Amino acid sequence: MPNAVAGPEIERLIQLLARMPGLGPRSARRAALQLIKKRESLLAPLADAMRVAVERIVVCHECGNVDTTDPCTICRDETRDPTMLVVVEDVSDLWALERSGAVKARYHVLGGVLSALDGVRPEHLNLARLVERAGDPAVREVILALNATVDGQTTAHYVTELLAHLSLTVTRLAHGVPVGGELDYLDEGTLSAAIQRRTAF
Amino acid sequence: MPNAVAGPEIERLIQLLARMPGLGPRSARRAALQLIKKRESLLAPLADAMRVAVERIVVCHECGNVDTTDPCTICRDETRDPTMLVVVEDVSDLWALERSGAVKARYHVLGGVLSALDGVRPEHLNLARLVERAGDPAVREVILALNATVDGQTTAHYVTELLAHLSLTVTRLAHGVPVGGELDYLDEGTLSAAIQRRTAF
Repeated sequence: MPNAVAGPEIERLIQLLARMPGLGPRSARRAALQLIKKRESLLAPLADAMRVAVERIVVCHECGNVDTTDPCTICRDETRDPTMLVVVEDVSDLWALERSGAVKARYHVLGGVLSALDGVRPEHLNLARLVERAGDPAVREVILALNATVDGQTTAHYVTELLAHLSLTVTRLAHGVPVGGELDYLDEGTLSAAIQRRTAF
Repeated sequence: MPNAVAGPEIERLIQLLARMPGLGPRSARRAALQLIKKRESLLAPLADAMRVAVERIVVCHECGNVDTTDPCTICRDETRDPTMLVVVEDVSDLWALERSGAVKARYHVLGGVLSALDGVRPEHLNLARLVERAGDPAVREVILALNATVDGQTTAHYVTELLAHLSLTVTRLAHGVPVGGELDYLDEGTLSAAIQRRTAF
């Protein structure tokens, strides 16, 4: 981008914005301009919120969640079911499950899934701490809430093996038709699973 | 979004990111997480760049461009052709023209175009200052680089009237086939214009 007309400060803002997920070089320029136009109502608060995030956000040493406290709000929440541990790949999955309100337990963020292609091996994941936490006698069930991808399911199998010596149940998410989903748009695997695991009406 | 799990600081960051052009609530959440993960390499520099932008960026009182100096870099650039003034709707158009390198003159940012639908009237645009600047005896030509939309062309006509009493030429951008454009994808108006204004090969 040989545009030095906007001044180095604006150019630097554009270049950093372009590195954000969801924004490219062109949309970053548009975003920069919008931010500059809404200087007081958006740019200044955003700069402050980012500064606060830089200074205050930490990774929970218990579960791998990000929060401004360690242990995180969820790990400190005494009202959560202590008998369950929900294993997720990433913090975004933890957030998604929390939004659903489907389970009120604690989580364990692996920080990725095993992948031969990407060279992700067991030692790259937060597994040692998982075995430790799952070894707590209070824990009766580990729910593997991993993506239904090849890597996700490989990891699920690996974790199941890893926890085999513990006297607890390892479960995984049900497969089936997404709520609101149209059959026409679903793949064969999902449809097969939904038929096989059909329930009484 | 009833997700208060991530802590108020992260929630606030997500909500502000969601107000950026090009990001919605879902992509803002993803962006926030990516930013937190790249705290030192992206989040911190971005927070700083935004803070610098908040504190240093000003609108040029001459042309309406945004820069860290007033008059802006372009208005202060003595190598630019003083006989031309390029009228644009928005700073983004100014940036686009500068990237093209098509003209090395000074600009005048109207800050919008006349629009009966959106209630934009002449007094909402930076027109008084344009008449003043165009009245400078050095200026021989005003190029109306406005969008080829109904509102853009309405504004072009209005500005032409406004400058009619001055002894200068008012021009507008040529219509035609975009460079690299495929005829198949062009509208009839563009094709008609391209045929009518055909040039010798």
